[in-house]
Amino acid sequence: MELGDLLTPALVVDEGRMTRNIDRMRRRVSELGVSFRPHVKTCKSLEIARRLMPTPRGPITVSTLKEAEQFFAHGVTDVLYAVGIAPSKLAHVGDLRARGCDLSAILDSVDAARAVTSFCAARRCEIPVLIEIDSDDHRGGVKPESPALLTIAGALRDGASVRGVMTHAGASYACRSTDAIVAMAEQERAAVVRAAERLRQAGFDAPVVSVGSTPTATFARTLSGVTEVRTGVFVFQDLVMAGLGVCAVDDIALSVLVSVIGHQREKGWILTDGGWMAVSRDRGTARQATDRGYGLVLDADGGLLEGFVMSDANQEHGIVSRGDGGPIDWAGFPVGARLRILPNHACATAAQHAAYHVINGSCEVLAQWDRFGGW
Amino acid sequence: MELGDLLTPALVVDEGRMTRNIDRMRRRVSELGVSFRPHVKTCKSLEIARRLMPTPRGPITVSTLKEAEQFFAHGVTDVLYAVGIAPSKLAHVGDLRARGCDLSAILDSVDAARAVTSFCAARRCEIPVLIEIDSDDHRGGVKPESPALLTIAGALRDGASVRGVMTHAGASYACRSTDAIVAMAEQERAAVVRAAERLRQAGFDAPVVSVGSTPTATFARTLSGVTEVRTGVFVFQDLVMAGLGVCAVDDIALSVLVSVIGHQREKGWILTDGGWMAVSRDRGTARQATDRGYGLVLDADGGLLEGFVMSDANQEHGIVSRGDGGPIDWAGFPVGARLRILPNHACATAAQHAAYHVINGSCEVLAQWDRFGGW
Repeated sequence: MELGDLLTPALVVDEGRMTRNIDRMRRRVSELGVSFRPHVKTCKSLEIARRLMPTPRGPITVSTLKEAEQFFAHGVTDVLYAVGIAPSKLAHVGDLRARGCDLSAILDSVDAARAVTSFCAARRCEIPVLIEIDSDDHRGGVKPESPALLTIAGALRDGASVRGVMTHAGASYACRSTDAIVAMAEQERAAVVRAAERLRQAGFDAPVVSVGSTPTATFARTLSGVTEVRTGVFVFQDLVMAGLGVCAVDDIALSVLVSVIGHQREKGWILTDGGWMAVSRDRGTARQATDRGYGLVLDADGGLLEGFVMSDANQEHGIVSRGDGGPIDWAGFPVGARLRILPNHACATAAQHAAYHVINGSCEVLAQWDRFGGW
Repeated sequence: MELGDLLTPALVVDEGRMTRNIDRMRRRVSELGVSFRPHVKTCKSLEIARRLMPTPRGPITVSTLKEAEQFFAHGVTDVLYAVGIAPSKLAHVGDLRARGCDLSAILDSVDAARAVTSFCAARRCEIPVLIEIDSDDHRGGVKPESPALLTIAGALRDGASVRGVMTHAGASYACRSTDAIVAMAEQERAAVVRAAERLRQAGFDAPVVSVGSTPTATFARTLSGVTEVRTGVFVFQDLVMAGLGVCAVDDIALSVLVSVIGHQREKGWILTDGGWMAVSRDRGTARQATDRGYGLVLDADGGLLEGFVMSDANQEHGIVSRGDGGPIDWAGFPVGARLRILPNHACATAAQHAAYHVINGSCEVLAQWDRFGGW
């Protein structure tokens, strides 16, 4: 089967590019001398997770208990659920652990710590916890010097234990230079290392010191004191990562195959059947130096169409046009022609689809890999 | 079961509000003296479509052949596929028609018309076609006065027939006043009526004259010459529609239930487990007079929390804060508390979920209705 045989829109992954992305991140993490706990929220695919994980049992990072459940069902037992635990999810966490999944949770408040402790005491079970550290004012976490850090650790008892600390320097996505990412990586490292130090001084073991974002992992000079790295989007890369200098545009392994369905020549528009339902509403590059609209455009053979962008989207309609105002050779875009859209944000685009169509540098479709969604 | 028993994030629909929205649109369409062909791309749910459709056999409008297939499997036979037909999809269209689904297609070019004619000639089958009219410079379609209109109609032969014309005044979403929507509705009406007139003068039957957008259908003064209205988002309404004055905020029937997972008090942030995966990346109100962020915020009982917005989103994290800078009574938002987010764009938010949890004015969960996605 060829890409030309697929119904559109369809999600395409180039396995060669993906493998190179994985190899590059593995080398990076290895050079930095830390463990690798890939984040599978980007792929949500068993086939891809198998290529990412250090061993068939993990470790992995997940963003939902659905991911934990799905990967555990296929033998993955070392799982970090890296979203602050909601008390109503503790029963599910306890159930996964009772079935043999070494799932750890994160939290950043005394209230959440008390909820975990109460749950563990009532159920006579154990839940290891990483305390979330705020290294960049981006979302959750306690500051490394905050008195709350030790209060939270102290509130974890009766089966709830302090496994360590974690942070995610999500603010790295908004950096404007490599130097800024290097500095952010050091800020991320220093924050969790300091937090771990304080916990250990106070008598807590805190063996795990976990960081992770694709930009900071790519440019960190050292991860001294850190024990593991969590990254996700690197597996596919995307235009936001390319805009940050984390990858080149031709490292991007994910694209959405679309068909030309019409034209508005006087406006310079090529209409396609790939709208925001197929590429997502993510406009991550709008905040970067170069706005890529809803994505850059490849021809049917995967060649970059210089100057073209997907400039607008309705639910099932995309508009492809020249972002640079140049002329369009309309004969190259007949009704029925195939194009491929490189996404702003791979996590968001992949989430709009139920399967990956796998190629490797050509138009031959080698496999179809399922992906799941939901919670 | 109560909303408090659901795992979060979860999609919630208030059946009472939805029923009132449906009744209101039905009355409108009836007053306007035209047929109603609801667009099921918003709900993608059999339970909801049954409440929308004039009869169990339809008619409906769909945005994907997956929708056509799913609803046809449950007895719906009168279906308009309202995205310009890609030639590669003709086999599926032909197959649905051969199985008894009266599916019509749309197109706006001679090339597409020739593709349909060739397909019908080769397969000895019939495909009725609506020619898409551009009434608002928004996406596809030919202008009503364009010579192309008659050329396209003339290219439909050998089983491919001109069933009529259709347009969608998507530009109505960007109107800044009710008067502007009234004017847009008239522009939409006049464009298709004129196109139908030209086709009929040229000897084509063109019995169907189809318009539709929730804003224009809500405010149209007359639909003289139009035969049917297609609207979709009215079933749930949303903040974009409220910003347009099409509905009130408390008409919005769709929301996403989330849990509080933490706080950043010095920043005025309440963190939740509902990120963009749960509410979508749609920021439709950013272009309106009042930007609602990722949505307005209800308390656990459905009361509007005045002044609060969902101000930012990561994949599985939402940030709720005061959009108006007012103080927060933190005791009202403990870890584990439930909130509900009213969406910018119901089509995009619903698409992130596999089921609706149905309530009716209270917190009791009365039913769960499946929804589907994909193509």
